[in-house]
Amino acid sequence: MSIFTATRARFDLPPGRVYLNGNSLGPPLRGMAKRVARAVRDDWAGDLSAAWSSADWVSLPARIGDRIAPLIGAARGTVTIGDTLTIRMAQALSAALTLRPGRRVVLTDDGNFPSDLYMAEELLRGLGKGHRLVRAAPEEVAGQINADVAVLMLTEVDFRTARRHDMGALTRAAHDAGALVVWDLAHSAGAVAVNVAGADADFAAGCTYKYLNGGPGAPAFVYVAPRHAETARPILAGWFGDRAPFAFRAHYEPAPGAAGWRIGTPPILSLVALDHALDVWDEVTPAACHARAAELAARLIRGARDACPSLALVSPPDPAARGSHLAFRHPQAQAIHEALAGRGVLGDVRRPDILRLAITPLYLGLDEIDRAVDALAEVAPAPGHVRRRSAP
Amino acid sequence: MSIFTATRARFDLPPGRVYLNGNSLGPPLRGMAKRVARAVRDDWAGDLSAAWSSADWVSLPARIGDRIAPLIGAARGTVTIGDTLTIRMAQALSAALTLRPGRRVVLTDDGNFPSDLYMAEELLRGLGKGHRLVRAAPEEVAGQINADVAVLMLTEVDFRTARRHDMGALTRAAHDAGALVVWDLAHSAGAVAVNVAGADADFAAGCTYKYLNGGPGAPAFVYVAPRHAETARPILAGWFGDRAPFAFRAHYEPAPGAAGWRIGTPPILSLVALDHALDVWDEVTPAACHARAAELAARLIRGARDACPSLALVSPPDPAARGSHLAFRHPQAQAIHEALAGRGVLGDVRRPDILRLAITPLYLGLDEIDRAVDALAEVAPAPGHVRRRSAP
Repeated sequence: MSIFTATRARFDLPPGRVYLNGNSLGPPLRGMAKRVARAVRDDWAGDLSAAWSSADWVSLPARIGDRIAPLIGAARGTVTIGDTLTIRMAQALSAALTLRPGRRVVLTDDGNFPSDLYMAEELLRGLGKGHRLVRAAPEEVAGQINADVAVLMLTEVDFRTARRHDMGALTRAAHDAGALVVWDLAHSAGAVAVNVAGADADFAAGCTYKYLNGGPGAPAFVYVAPRHAETARPILAGWFGDRAPFAFRAHYEPAPGAAGWRIGTPPILSLVALDHALDVWDEVTPAACHARAAELAARLIRGARDACPSLALVSPPDPAARGSHLAFRHPQAQAIHEALAGRGVLGDVRRPDILRLAITPLYLGLDEIDRAVDALAEVAPAPGHVRRRSAP
Repeated sequence: MSIFTATRARFDLPPGRVYLNGNSLGPPLRGMAKRVARAVRDDWAGDLSAAWSSADWVSLPARIGDRIAPLIGAARGTVTIGDTLTIRMAQALSAALTLRPGRRVVLTDDGNFPSDLYMAEELLRGLGKGHRLVRAAPEEVAGQINADVAVLMLTEVDFRTARRHDMGALTRAAHDAGALVVWDLAHSAGAVAVNVAGADADFAAGCTYKYLNGGPGAPAFVYVAPRHAETARPILAGWFGDRAPFAFRAHYEPAPGAAGWRIGTPPILSLVALDHALDVWDEVTPAACHARAAELAARLIRGARDACPSLALVSPPDPAARGSHLAFRHPQAQAIHEALAGRGVLGDVRRPDILRLAITPLYLGLDEIDRAVDALAEVAPAPGHVRRRSAP
């Protein structure tokens, strides 16, 4: 029996639907409602503020950080959890900039997720030191790395196309030019075999509500390379990152390692939900998921080609060069998406014309892929009805 | 029947205990576990990513902001919710500084909560523009406001002593000197009659896990005065604060009002819990709570004086000059706290020698105050056993 038969039995999925949007929001593991309700009843209502000790809420960020660490190739104590991905990226970018005070360029690509771009625009403006955010096309990033670049800030897997950057090669190129690298792992964590330590990344952050199934708006993690832990100071700090938060001292002194990157009081109910979601990773690795996703994706690509030839795959055909979703371009992407949803096949659309279908082997198998292909054949626009996209 | 008989019936409190630590973590309203479990089962598991629309998760921050607004004297659309209090204070402080570019002092007091002080230290250092954080004694703040002050940043109610600043007078004094004011309402929201608009405050932020009972680590709110909404730009921004987040545009353009201060994807399960907790405010006002707390506090102060004369009240005796907890100094504060807890009377201690007892009329009445006084009489150290505190 495949390991994925076992993982799939752990998920609570609505009957009759094929969920291909796990790159937006992963579904809950079974027992999630009970687990969160228990935290409310037994811990919060039962022990009130004493639950910070009795339920060990106070160590949840460290414990969850240590559960996420192996999923991204990080050592114990180098990952912490809490706040949103955008905040974590702001911490990492600001800390990296302080380590390269003489340089003024933050290099990114124009496929990066808007929140990272918005964060960087406003942070650099707020710093007011003349930093520039330079946006290259994804395939031209490597060629733009030079001695002006303070920080290379990239999302490993493109949220639209699933195109995957070569984390090791780009990190090396940046280091060779004297720059630091911040990786956004939003579409990577739990989807592909990330190895931040192996790639020698400086900082990385990711959300937990996609392939890690932590729930809507679940807290984000941040990785701090041990060589930077003592020297890199983010612009954001708070009492939970202090060496002795409950001493209520007048001056801040960061805790060692990633723990020093905690900020305010962590969101306990959300952390409890995430802790439950991580149980499935006791049985399986992201590498195994990525390999299985490659098989399922190949079947979906073949099936889609036959069922709806006017769909153009815009994701890289090589599974090693992409994350865990497939993006197809079609002038009627929205209509196709809605027609599929009407048949219980749930993907999504990134306007104007990208249909995204996520392959999540933890809870999707051959049957679901075949159902998706069948539905696609039913809803495929007749060739004569495909309008040509006008030139941009 | 008092309104507080009705509010108290809505809380889920462990039997046999007197909970005097609601200024640390408020207890859950009845039905909390079910409400959160329903959000997991019906919305997350049932509708998956479609729940962003079907359960209207996307408007939760605005809807909750509008429920909190009347509790702090703010108009609709001027409050939003999400992230931690420290992050919200960092947004407010950074935005205020950009509005006073020629000035270099952030004035605060040394009774401020450490997280605000740590945040300000690291933010000012990260900005690297020569700003100084000046800490006055609370009673000397007014005298330190001068033309060098860019921002006055204060916590209205002191987390140790409950001493309450005069928000209106200090805001006026700061404005007269050309400075802006950021108020931390952590121990104010839900405890006293806050009126940010009436006081003409520029920015304010508060947490929701104390007197608003939103749950451990519940998200924070921020108030942005309408006159600053178009001009003040915090150093932190993200896609949820954009004018059109789901257009995934390349450049950031903040949404109008407080909505432009959203950052990353909001924590939905925590927001659902908070939304439930706010139901109790449909029946009662913070002003009514503060008035009732004054009566209960007077009874506790009298009772404590008789039961344990060596306890010294360090909170202001005038209820208008304090928040909703009482702080007593005693060299054996920790031992007294533990002995009280052994009798089911739950307060807490701020080292080295402050015993804090919170008065929360939503779920505490005369009976609980009398039980606390009786317990105090039982555990009070015999006068001969009170060691004198050595001079500081």
